[in-house]
Parts: sequence; C-alpha cells; structure tokens
Amino acid sequence: MNGAHRLSQVPPGVQCFVGDEARRRRQIEERVLRVFEGWDYEEIIPPLFDYADVFADGALGPRTYSFVGRDGSLLALRPDFTSLLAKIAAGRLRERPAPIRLYYSGEVLRYEPPRAGSQSELFQMGLEHLGGDPLRADAEVLAVAAECLDALGVRGFLLTIGHVGVFSGLAEAAGLEGAALAAIRERVESKDAAGVAEALSRAGANGPAADSLVRLATLSGGADALGQVKRIAAPSQAAALAARDLESVVAALHEAGLGDRVALDLGEVRGLDYYTGLVFRVLAPGLGFEVGSGGRYDTLVGRFGRPLPAVGFMLGLDRLDLLLQRQGIALDQPGAEALPVTAEDVGEALKAARGLRAEGTRVRFCPDDDGGGA
Amino acid sequence: MNGAHRLSQVPPGVQCFVGDEARRRRQIEERVLRVFEGWDYEEIIPPLFDYADVFADGALGPRTYSFVGRDGSLLALRPDFTSLLAKIAAGRLRERPAPIRLYYSGEVLRYEPPRAGSQSELFQMGLEHLGGDPLRADAEVLAVAAECLDALGVRGFLLTIGHVGVFSGLAEAAGLEGAALAAIRERVESKDAAGVAEALSRAGANGPAADSLVRLATLSGGADALGQVKRIAAPSQAAALAARDLESVVAALHEAGLGDRVALDLGEVRGLDYYTGLVFRVLAPGLGFEVGSGGRYDTLVGRFGRPLPAVGFMLGLDRLDLLLQRQGIALDQPGAEALPVTAEDVGEALKAARGLRAEGTRVRFCPDDDGGGA
Repeated sequence: MNGAHRLSQVPPGVQCFVGDEARRRRQIEERVLRVFEGWDYEEIIPPLFDYADVFADGALGPRTYSFVGRDGSLLALRPDFTSLLAKIAAGRLRERPAPIRLYYSGEVLRYEPPRAGSQSELFQMGLEHLGGDPLRADAEVLAVAAECLDALGVRGFLLTIGHVGVFSGLAEAAGLEGAALAAIRERVESKDAAGVAEALSRAGANGPAADSLVRLATLSGGADALGQVKRIAAPSQAAALAARDLESVVAALHEAGLGDRVALDLGEVRGLDYYTGLVFRVLAPGLGFEVGSGGRYDTLVGRFGRPLPAVGFMLGLDRLDLLLQRQGIALDQPGAEALPVTAEDVGEALKAARGLRAEGTRVRFCPDDDGGGA
Repeated sequence: MNGAHRLSQVPPGVQCFVGDEARRRRQIEERVLRVFEGWDYEEIIPPLFDYADVFADGALGPRTYSFVGRDGSLLALRPDFTSLLAKIAAGRLRERPAPIRLYYSGEVLRYEPPRAGSQSELFQMGLEHLGGDPLRADAEVLAVAAECLDALGVRGFLLTIGHVGVFSGLAEAAGLEGAALAAIRERVESKDAAGVAEALSRAGANGPAADSLVRLATLSGGADALGQVKRIAAPSQAAALAARDLESVVAALHEAGLGDRVALDLGEVRGLDYYTGLVFRVLAPGLGFEVGSGGRYDTLVGRFGRPLPAVGFMLGLDRLDLLLQRQGIALDQPGAEALPVTAEDVGEALKAARGLRAEGTRVRFCPDDDGGGA
C-alpha cells in the first residue's frame, strides 16, 4: 500500500484526458472508424486481457502487464490487438468464410521500464484483413490507411512500404543465421550501411547476396526505386519474389491514384516478429515518428488453429491527435454553447430545462449556483 | 504459462463483441453520451489503472485486479470510475470552480471468485456532479438519468429513490454500532422486517427508533409514501432531516413532470460505502435487476484533498443492451449495404472503389475473391 501523499499522485505512463482533449479524441476516432465501416470492416470489441501465452510470441511478450486470474492462470493486459483478433478469427469466427474484415478501436497497455518516459496506455485504431488474395488485400488496406489520413485532413502524408521477404531472402542466401542475422538486421533497421558491411565481414559472409544487404540498408525512394529493388533482390529467388509482390502492390496503388502517397523503404525490416511480407509505416510532416504502421502476417492466425494469411494496420490515436495539432488542423466545432436555465423554484427550473432538452437544446442547469461550491 | 490447447480458450468473465453486437453497443453509448453532453457535462477519459489505494476504500477494494507497476508500486485496474473522477476533481481540476460536471464511458474490471459466473469486464457510462447546491444537483442528475432511458426508448422505467441518512440516523438513535449495526443493515437490505426485529432484539435495542427500523425495511411506494417516511424518521433528528431532503427532491421531480417515474424505496441502504445521502436505482420491466444506480457521496472527494459534496450515477451498457432486447427495442438501421467493387485489374478496381468512397458510398472490395481463402 502507498502512503497518504500518494493519493493525489498519478502512476507514471498513464493517461487522463478532460473536456476538449476528450472531445478531440472522439472526433478523430469517429472519422477513422467511419472510413473502416466505409470499406465494410466489422467492429470487434475484444477482451482487455487474455491468457498471457496469447501474447507470448514476439517482441511484445516482455512488455505485457501480467497478473493472476480467478482460475489461477497467468493473464496479461493486451499489448496489441492483432494477436487477439487472430485468435478470435480462428476461434469464435472459425465458421466464417474468408476473407474476414475486422476492425478495432481501444486501449492497449504496455509495461515500460521505470523512467522510460513513454506511455503505458496507448489508444489504437486498426483493422485486419484475414484470408483472400494477398495482392488485393495488401492494396486494399493501404488504400484504407490513406483514406483515414485524408478524412482527417492530414497534409503531405506518406505510406513507406517495404517487404520483409527481401531482407530474409537475401540473408538466407548469404547463409546468415542466429546472432549474426540479428546483428545485421539491427544495422539494416538503423540504416547503417557501413555497420551492415562490418557485421557481414565479421560473420564471414560475402558474395552478391551480402553486397545486396549492404545496399538494402539505405534503399528508399519513390516508385523509381523499384528497379533498384529488383536488382538488389536478384541474388535470392525468395527475395526476387518478394520484390515482385512489392512491385504489384505499388503498381496497383499508382493506378488507383495513390502514387504520390507511396514511397519505398526496404530498410524497413524492424517491427513485430510476426510480419511475413509487406510492411509499411504512415509518416507525415510535423511528426518525427510514424502515426501508424502495418504489414502482412501469414503465420500468426495458424498459431491459433486456422491457417489464414492476413494483413492489417493500426493508427495511434495519441499520435494522430498530436499530428493534427502540429499541422494546425481543427476538427469539428465544439458544439453549441449550453443555455443557462434557472428559476426561483428547483422543480420549475427543472421543468423548463426538460422542455428545452426535448427540443434538443443544450442546457446548463441552475448556473446561478455555479461557483457556489467549495 | 498455459498449455497449447488453452490458446483457443477464453478466460472466464471476459467479453468479446462482434459486428452487430458491437454496433448496437456503440449506438447505445452514443445516445446516452449525447444526453450527458446535452446537460453540459464534460467527458473525462481517466486512466485504466491507478495506485491500488485509490480504490482501497469501500466494498470494491477486494474486487480489484492488482499488479506491480514499473515504479514498484501496487497498481489496480479500475473497478469503478467514481473514485478516479473524485481524484481528478481534487487534483488535476483543483483550480476549477464548483460545480463541476463530468462524465465518463468505458470499461471497469472486477475480480470475481472462480465459478462466480459473472463478468470481470463491465462497460459503464455515468456522470458526476461535484459541488453546488445538493437539492438542485440531486434533482438534476435524476432528470438526466430519466432522459437517458427516454432517449433509448425504454418503456416503464422507474427511479427508485432512498436516502441512507434515514437508516443511519435511526440506527444511531437506537444506539446501534459495530456488528449489530451491520447485521441490521443487511436485514434491511434484504427487506426482511422480521429479521430486522429479531436482530434488534438480539442487540437489546428498542424504543421508537428501533420500531422505525423494522418498518423501514419494507417501506416503498409512490410519492404517497413520503408521509410515512416522515413519520418513521421522526425518532431521529438526522433521519428527519434526511427525510426532508428526500421530500424536496421528489417534489422537484414531480413538478418537472417526472412524477410517474419516481418511486420510494427506503430499504435501499445497500450499495457502495461512500454514499452519504440520496441513493437510487434505475429499474425497468423486462430485467430483474437494476440497469443503473447512483447516489450522493459528500466525503469521497475530500479523501483526495478537496472537500466537495457530490452526486452521480452510472448505467451499465451490457444491462441496457439486454434490456432493449428484452423490450424488443431496435435502435438505428445497420447502415447501407456495401456495394461490391471489382475489375480484372486490381489497380483499376481500387481506383473505382476510391471513387465511390469519395462520394460516401460504402464498398466491399473485390468480393469475387470472397470465400476464396482458407
């Protein structure tokens, strides 16, 4: 138990929004969810916690808040939605034919080290497209992501797209595994070509695939960079196939009028362990980090007993809110001012207030009393 | 860690809503929050967890899920909103003059014993009116509660109103305390007049206040029961004052046109320990338990360093949803059917889909692919 002075303190990393902040968040959420609905995605409200092993796979495992449940099992607060939706698609919705389009909107909770300064509570909105043709699904979710940003009026946003298959194909062709693979992946993530070269030489890897990995670290740009991607991927058949998939998605987005929203970033190999194909981030001027991210995960749903390829993305509500403020974008009006309603007699005033409410008027009851409290 | 077969299982007491269920919940929430906004209440989005001692006071303490946070403190998932809002009103909003009108909408989490069969996750919408004249505030929140039920089209609902001061005044006048007080309170809650009489006799309590306690257990009815309440309360000055407060609130509600929505229930002494005055429940035909409840708590906010009388109530979303189904009330239409969009070429189809979306049409992308997944 904590001492009395703690009663007014707030634990590190928790959130609290009041009034206008809360209204802004609701308005952002409403616009984004309207876009999800517009593409025929169905809402899921999943549990806030589940058995800890649902989240045990991957980078988020160590970042869960866990506790013991009423049946003695180890439970964990959800650190993300994707695992939960995969479990639901494989379980409760197992009779539902694919593709399945699902969306969610809610909080996730992440254990952060002391003094990390980052939030433990994050509000995420996202969707998952499970089953169906991968190319169509990838193109669709990228278009939906773009529409969300457009619906909020965000200027200059970019979808930076990569494919984990290019890196993993080349790494395999270069004979990398274990610690050496992890070290090189980390240097590619940091876009540090010299570091990649050094790590490769330490691992004794050379040849065309190794050369390609060095170039991969800094490969980014518009659609014109696609030719380079194909050349870089050539030393590995798997990487070449991944590059072709990437090309098809980018071509579809161009044709659909989203060409100026797309950029390539093949150094984009970081992120959650469950990604198996296309990966992307949503960036926009005014914010030094992504407002959202997504990718294809073709093996996660199978873990829960239903092999189903899938792709999805999420947008961070806190980050979107910050981005809109940085870009000076105000959403809707705050609503009509409340009409003060008062009278000598409480019952009489209440009757008047109820009459106004029946007409849809916003009221503030007995404001002559306002300020009279402690 | 749990075994592999657990991966498809769901922990007891958690929720999961899909599609239509989720949409129905959103529609209920939207209507209720529009009423809160209509009376000029401001939304608070409080943290999902806080230091455990914030919730330690009262009946909910033992029902919290607790865990250790990043600073080594004992944290607890919120089991209700009222304590959190009291803390925020006394802390972050300490400079804000009273009265303060706040509302919330979100999940609370309650530890339930194994095999209890009840939900661990509950979704509550409610408001708190802090500071200001008690009579006006009490009358206002009861009118807001009634409007919420009306806005949802609920038929035949009743606000059953009591006042904990009538019981506690009489109990004090009868010289009851400790275990005897708890036993009698429990029998009054159970509306067991014979049991109250027996417990009083065991406690050696007699006289007018004791007689009144026996009658209190079964005292309920319309406004006509107010006369009885005053007679019953007479043996205690505190009880008589409480009865007068109750009478004023009921009179105001009658004058405001809510007379047929109000009933008295003086046996209503149960509930959360922090209630100090008026208490009420919202009942409706079709449901054997209340859809919501509320009351006055004049000492809770002071615990957090700002003495401020307050009154509030909450409605349970799950219960409202069940009630609407039992009463056969359907809310809004499910929205337009999605228009299938397809073409030979993915980019072409996506362009067509984006064109329809720009016109506000709901689309389902490449449905010829639907059912083609695993």
